[in-house]
Amino acid sequence: MGMMSPAPTAATDTGDERRSARKRRAIIQAATTVFLRNGYLGTSMDEIAALAAVSKQTVYKHFADKQSLFAEIVIGTVNEISDRVYEEVVSLQDSGDIEADLRELARRQLAGGMQPRLLQLRRVVISEAGRFPELGRTFCERGPGRTIAALAAAFERLAGRGVLHLGDPLLAAEHFNWLIMSIPLNRAMLCGDGELPAPADLDRYADAGVRVFLTAYGPGR
Amino acid sequence: MGMMSPAPTAATDTGDERRSARKRRAIIQAATTVFLRNGYLGTSMDEIAALAAVSKQTVYKHFADKQSLFAEIVIGTVNEISDRVYEEVVSLQDSGDIEADLRELARRQLAGGMQPRLLQLRRVVISEAGRFPELGRTFCERGPGRTIAALAAAFERLAGRGVLHLGDPLLAAEHFNWLIMSIPLNRAMLCGDGELPAPADLDRYADAGVRVFLTAYGPGR
Repeated sequence: MGMMSPAPTAATDTGDERRSARKRRAIIQAATTVFLRNGYLGTSMDEIAALAAVSKQTVYKHFADKQSLFAEIVIGTVNEISDRVYEEVVSLQDSGDIEADLRELARRQLAGGMQPRLLQLRRVVISEAGRFPELGRTFCERGPGRTIAALAAAFERLAGRGVLHLGDPLLAAEHFNWLIMSIPLNRAMLCGDGELPAPADLDRYADAGVRVFLTAYGPGR
Repeated sequence: MGMMSPAPTAATDTGDERRSARKRRAIIQAATTVFLRNGYLGTSMDEIAALAAVSKQTVYKHFADKQSLFAEIVIGTVNEISDRVYEEVVSLQDSGDIEADLRELARRQLAGGMQPRLLQLRRVVISEAGRFPELGRTFCERGPGRTIAALAAAFERLAGRGVLHLGDPLLAAEHFNWLIMSIPLNRAMLCGDGELPAPADLDRYADAGVRVFLTAYGPGR
């Protein structure tokens, strides 16, 4: 890229670190492509190294084995998507308009959860769940599990303020999550990405889920 | 099994038909084993023929290709399981105790949907949904789609009797289905069959789903 060679001083470390971080990103990017295309079993470290244009030794320097590389991709992808709603979930506890805020959250949560890359990753994880349940547990804990735990904490505070009425915050959080996600997510899982609902349809599912949730757990109950 | 050889008359046809039906069952049984173990792509007609102890020609005499054989297995498995709740769903429209009847139905529906063989089949269908969305559509239509359509019809009648309150019977049916199924089903999909909930836990999810459903759509609304 026309950069000067680093001088053989402390700067060398920085240059090495930068090169190393760049290679790591290239490996993750290549691995994501290959895993989503070929599945977990159909992917080899050789293929990832070739696509990332690094040696197989370099791949193994960064990732002990195929499973830790896949776990890294699962964690990176689900974090990236759940990060976007996480702050919103946490701030829900101070909501002054629970209906509007839940609807806004539900729409963002569903739009995030229905991104094709995440759907494809979820499919790969599910297809290997019989052989590698730990991959699925990682997906659960870092993705929906993290959002649901944060929702449960926010719901508990809201119940303390009398805004929601619930006995079991975690169950209420699971009900919220699945009232929003289930219909389009399960259809997409089974029927592929060819028939993903339009954003307006996703919003309708989100709104309908919030309506049912609030009738069961809301202030007017 | 010690049967006499059929006489060379009209009875021969019957004997041929019986042998043919027996071979067909053996093929389906062998194919189920191999598909669930190796996935769709990992399964060959040769392997199925070998396990069924028939020739490959016999397999192709009964099933035009791998895809129609797999579709047959999907249809057979989901029909077998959805048949068990179908009559109950249809009779729901005459319910005199909607809470008790929905709870009974929900428990049976969840117990049926969480059978390991169905979970494994669902996993195979999901893992191929990118390449073969028509397999997933078959699974949807014959399985959950059939139950949900019957639920929607029953809910519409119940709304006509003033027992339920709803504007969109199909949406209400989807909400019912997923309030019951989502939590354990999605966990099982991602985390494998090693952590299937105990029947008592499934009943608790079913009861909690019915509670939310009836608060939103029930007579007391």
